[in-house]
Amino acid sequence: MIVSIIGSGNVATHLAKALKTVNVQVLNIWSNRFENAQALAQEVDAQAVSELAEIAADESNILLISIKDDAIAEVAPKLTAYNGIIAHTSGSVNLAALGGLKNYGVFYPLQTFSKQKEVDFSIIPLCLEASNAAALGKLKHLANLLSKHCYDVDSEQRKTLHLAAVFACNFPNYLYGIAQKLLAQHQLDFELIRPLIAETANKVQTALPVNVQTGPAIRNDEHTLTKHEGLLQGHPEWLTIYKLLSEEIKKG
Amino acid sequence: MIVSIIGSGNVATHLAKALKTVNVQVLNIWSNRFENAQALAQEVDAQAVSELAEIAADESNILLISIKDDAIAEVAPKLTAYNGIIAHTSGSVNLAALGGLKNYGVFYPLQTFSKQKEVDFSIIPLCLEASNAAALGKLKHLANLLSKHCYDVDSEQRKTLHLAAVFACNFPNYLYGIAQKLLAQHQLDFELIRPLIAETANKVQTALPVNVQTGPAIRNDEHTLTKHEGLLQGHPEWLTIYKLLSEEIKKG
Repeated sequence: MIVSIIGSGNVATHLAKALKTVNVQVLNIWSNRFENAQALAQEVDAQAVSELAEIAADESNILLISIKDDAIAEVAPKLTAYNGIIAHTSGSVNLAALGGLKNYGVFYPLQTFSKQKEVDFSIIPLCLEASNAAALGKLKHLANLLSKHCYDVDSEQRKTLHLAAVFACNFPNYLYGIAQKLLAQHQLDFELIRPLIAETANKVQTALPVNVQTGPAIRNDEHTLTKHEGLLQGHPEWLTIYKLLSEEIKKG
Repeated sequence: MIVSIIGSGNVATHLAKALKTVNVQVLNIWSNRFENAQALAQEVDAQAVSELAEIAADESNILLISIKDDAIAEVAPKLTAYNGIIAHTSGSVNLAALGGLKNYGVFYPLQTFSKQKEVDFSIIPLCLEASNAAALGKLKHLANLLSKHCYDVDSEQRKTLHLAAVFACNFPNYLYGIAQKLLAQHQLDFELIRPLIAETANKVQTALPVNVQTGPAIRNDEHTLTKHEGLLQGHPEWLTIYKLLSEEIKKG
């Protein structure tokens, strides 16, 4: 199995490294900026190419498009001569965005990636979809080499998954930030609250969130809710968030 | 060092077990319901007592009050004869609630406890405060036996810490629950999103949340925000939360 990659950002980089780790050859890398393609290619023993047409296009090959959502529809029409399977890695772009191609699909790793931080690909859910059964089979084969968690997820479901990820990742991180700012304002280190954040996420690895909800709102502790709202008087935007989320939690 | 405990709930139970683990003798346990005191006492080789006055009250002893917030002020006046140090374990009750006693303090473990789930006390931050330096010293000595993370936190700071914990724990868990319900409505398993939740919490164990914020709001991706809002049309309360949090994240 031979894979080429379009892109050199976070996801492209982690994917390329993970492929190398499981001994899948990364053949060509193309990026908007050739230097970036070269840098990543060097890391994974691949060949950077400056033109999309230079990407090896054998039938048995897979080409992963891992670039900004908006750019996928711009790049796709330039790949009509490609004979292998072309799959994008986006959570929110429909399969149909690759509709003009021969064999195409989606290869979406559901995780939050940072450039600096190593990730264990074997625990990352890979969400797969393809234009035909043969293409899906090949994407599954590749996915199984990388991860123990591969799922069939169609474009409709993937839209919801991407939205759910905002609630499960982006919003909690923002709330961690409010906690950090509250602590800093009272000369308390963020270190104090890190174990609580870790355990909160840890609990739902086996339980469902609705079964482990804690805090003043779920026990209708009006006394504490009122005290907390008082403490937030100087931060009207945080007070609004506190009241809204507490009201929703109270509804059970 | 000898410790007795008032209470038999989550925190009391985990504390008693953790003390036993580090070879601190738990002498007496009192609870509102004697059967509960007996059950916990049996687990940690302690002696259940049916009257508060029966709790051993040597000067060198520590009595931890680990009961509902409102009940602390009710129990405290009945302990005026106690010669040791009396400390409550609440995040939101002022030190002054024990004001009528001889030597008193606060021994607050900042963590979310579940009855079924074992916890590693050595990584739990213990927030300490006391009515005098000698009492604080003894509480610190006890705390250091249990955890590597002991902090001086006064009642004012503790109020903020307790509020910050709502933003860092209770609210994120509620948002996990929204994610779970969204997935369930589209025949997707919560399992799909668990690694993302774990990694989101994991990231801020070394970074600050403000430095690792991701998602459509922080990159002002109006196209995705509009798509997500469209998906939430059937859930006005989740839509309100989505819009409010996205607006705040956009402010940076």
